[in-house]
Amino acid sequence: MSEKATQYAQQNGARFVDELKDLLRIPSVSTAPEHVEDVRKAAQFVADHLTAAGLQNVKLIETTTSERKGHPLVYADWLNAPGKPTVLCYGHYDVQPAEPLDEWKTPPFEPTERDGNIYARGAVDDKGQLWMHVKALESLLKADGTLPVNIKVIVEGEEEVGGEGIAAFVREHGDVLKADAALVSDTEMFAPELPTLCVGLRGMIYAELEVRGAMTDLHSGMYGGAAPNPFIALAQIIALMKRADGHIAIPGFYDNVEAPTKAELDAWRSLPFDEEHYRKTEVGSPALTGEEAFSVLERTWSRPTMDVHGMPGGFIGAGAKTVIPAKAVAKISFRLVPGMKPAETFEKYKKFVEENMPKGVTAEVRMIHFGEPIVVSTDNDYIHAAAAAMKDVWGKDTVYVRGGGSIPIVGDFVRELGIPTVMMGFGLPDDNLHAPNEKFHLPNFHRGIASIIRFFEKVGE
Amino acid sequence: MSEKATQYAQQNGARFVDELKDLLRIPSVSTAPEHVEDVRKAAQFVADHLTAAGLQNVKLIETTTSERKGHPLVYADWLNAPGKPTVLCYGHYDVQPAEPLDEWKTPPFEPTERDGNIYARGAVDDKGQLWMHVKALESLLKADGTLPVNIKVIVEGEEEVGGEGIAAFVREHGDVLKADAALVSDTEMFAPELPTLCVGLRGMIYAELEVRGAMTDLHSGMYGGAAPNPFIALAQIIALMKRADGHIAIPGFYDNVEAPTKAELDAWRSLPFDEEHYRKTEVGSPALTGEEAFSVLERTWSRPTMDVHGMPGGFIGAGAKTVIPAKAVAKISFRLVPGMKPAETFEKYKKFVEENMPKGVTAEVRMIHFGEPIVVSTDNDYIHAAAAAMKDVWGKDTVYVRGGGSIPIVGDFVRELGIPTVMMGFGLPDDNLHAPNEKFHLPNFHRGIASIIRFFEKVGE
Repeated sequence: MSEKATQYAQQNGARFVDELKDLLRIPSVSTAPEHVEDVRKAAQFVADHLTAAGLQNVKLIETTTSERKGHPLVYADWLNAPGKPTVLCYGHYDVQPAEPLDEWKTPPFEPTERDGNIYARGAVDDKGQLWMHVKALESLLKADGTLPVNIKVIVEGEEEVGGEGIAAFVREHGDVLKADAALVSDTEMFAPELPTLCVGLRGMIYAELEVRGAMTDLHSGMYGGAAPNPFIALAQIIALMKRADGHIAIPGFYDNVEAPTKAELDAWRSLPFDEEHYRKTEVGSPALTGEEAFSVLERTWSRPTMDVHGMPGGFIGAGAKTVIPAKAVAKISFRLVPGMKPAETFEKYKKFVEENMPKGVTAEVRMIHFGEPIVVSTDNDYIHAAAAAMKDVWGKDTVYVRGGGSIPIVGDFVRELGIPTVMMGFGLPDDNLHAPNEKFHLPNFHRGIASIIRFFEKVGE
Repeated sequence: MSEKATQYAQQNGARFVDELKDLLRIPSVSTAPEHVEDVRKAAQFVADHLTAAGLQNVKLIETTTSERKGHPLVYADWLNAPGKPTVLCYGHYDVQPAEPLDEWKTPPFEPTERDGNIYARGAVDDKGQLWMHVKALESLLKADGTLPVNIKVIVEGEEEVGGEGIAAFVREHGDVLKADAALVSDTEMFAPELPTLCVGLRGMIYAELEVRGAMTDLHSGMYGGAAPNPFIALAQIIALMKRADGHIAIPGFYDNVEAPTKAELDAWRSLPFDEEHYRKTEVGSPALTGEEAFSVLERTWSRPTMDVHGMPGGFIGAGAKTVIPAKAVAKISFRLVPGMKPAETFEKYKKFVEENMPKGVTAEVRMIHFGEPIVVSTDNDYIHAAAAAMKDVWGKDTVYVRGGGSIPIVGDFVRELGIPTVMMGFGLPDDNLHAPNEKFHLPNFHRGIASIIRFFEKVGE
């Protein structure tokens, strides 16, 4: 065990946090065209710090092609441990949009410490967690002058917009990323102080539905009663698609859903989870919703869902405008679970829309991005090493959970590179991912670094 | 007949249009807090021109009270025709928001002439039509040195936001506006070259529906399947409320609807109206919608309706954000017809929402503004004078129609002042009211001025 590396991390912990704050100040919102230069700035920042940490062959890899504009990948490696396994560290330096800005207590791109947490967009998803990788590697290299394993680092800037660039890179240049296992820190612990490995993720399709009625915006006084209203048409189709009991009424939608094993379900039932506490403290709504035949963990980990994220169009200013808009859009996503294929689900959704569109309107369904669902077997040496490393640092047995969200590249690592992925994340359930007041619990940042150092050592033993 | 006044109007027609353009350049959007000074500027512009035309006692009347901020009324009079009737001229100098800006061929506040039309926000609704009143009065006063009737002018700046200020003024200071009849030019001709009087208007309620689920925005990956989605709840309630066949399912909604008389329905059937031509040229949707048991004219003139104008909340930017928003809003309005009361309809709507809200969310219904529906009897001297004046200018018999929209103050004139209202408007069906590329046909502007001059003369005979 390298006490020196762990000591180095402890002694330099305050500087690590300061550097993370610098990274968090860069508004690298990958979906926003106006932030394209900020996204690149964040990539360069990560690359510079990988170089300073002692990594080699550090470079930005462009993902823009003749078909699409992309954000750069950051690559680095250190391959001077012959005979030892190679671990591929993955993270993403892009972040979700920060809106609605007025709900942030402190501005999203001015990282602020409060109550042992650091608040900023990207604090936990994923800049803070990515930074644990960089600083674990720095600690080992600076303290020991070497690493216990071979390392490749790949950091992307499009995770929040579907990860098309890295997916293409893995398909076309998979050999560059060849490794024995991947390490991803973009997930959360099931509960505070409870070391957790995530071994399954839902996939998704995010596909806008645009409805067009009249050829131009019309006055609802003059035309109300004769002209189609795209918002009402959208409401009617959405209500048909998602029933009040949470069931999704698209024919064949659930056809290939694979249920979790009995062992997995038993393990979930033994997790410290109280539905009423979750409702009150995490969701805060009068009741939870969804399919009643399934537990909350099943509903969020192993059941597919449908959500509407926004409905652009018409008049959204203060007060009143009596317009029947010519068009309206619903931003709709479906979470997919093992057994489901994004392309197939998209076709079923599209067919349902075509067959059920109300009179007077036309509809267009547009895929924005998608990711495949995955499950990782717990029966491999890297998962075992990770579980043991976390137990060493946290002093408790590691639990295995799934995540409801999507990390599209994890599926590609499994399918294209044929390697197991260790999803060792240190977020907490109340970290406000994708929401205002996103945070990262700083003790988790520091113990996360210690856990990652330990993991590399165990893999190299 | 004052050939002199009509000649004056012809000779000064180009200047009248130039002045109208100056008025149209002022972005007096009454619903937008950022335009509050522009709204006042438009009021002052109208007042200055009324003074220059020779009207007396011109002043701005403030409508701001301890309870609300309001836009000023413009008042003027000319009461030097003893023994003659008094006509109250009404118009509004405020306009609808111009969004979506990218659909305007020329900017909404840079009036532009094309093909005999003037394009600008407010061109026909109602700055261009209000300007006909001002210029008809100027023509008579400058050419004849006198008017054939007594005149009061009241111009408001809140018509597009419900007209609360003028309604309060009429209630509290109705005597100031005491007159024998009102003249309103804020409606349209049924077809080009067809002189038209509007004798009925739908009322409305505009009431936002806000739905709240979780206490904060949530990540749809982590919470999708358990957390309520306010947009889906809104879709479900809207779909319940407005059926696919156009029927509004709120209990008791149609209870007090008064059907038009057989004579009125017969007259409507004889109007030059082709449903397929209307669908193609005015609406442009694949089909018309609404209650099949009623004709298009009935559906838009004498049947109540429901429309959704916009659904603020969540993520509406480009691309994808996987948020389950804490709240979402639907801007909903109902058009009301004679027999229906805004307050009663609002209560029925609210009750329906309360009783049908999906699980997991709470709802709030907020009245933004409302107006009562009205019907004017065609059997009075002022309507006869208007019909004769229009026939003189246009050379055709005047037709009586209703309007689907609302001019809230007309109901107040009828109820509070007890006077008939002549709705003599010169818009055309394709003028794009409340929509991009609003226009006013310039020959109608000039012939409208001639019609109004003739109307004053006939009333004074």
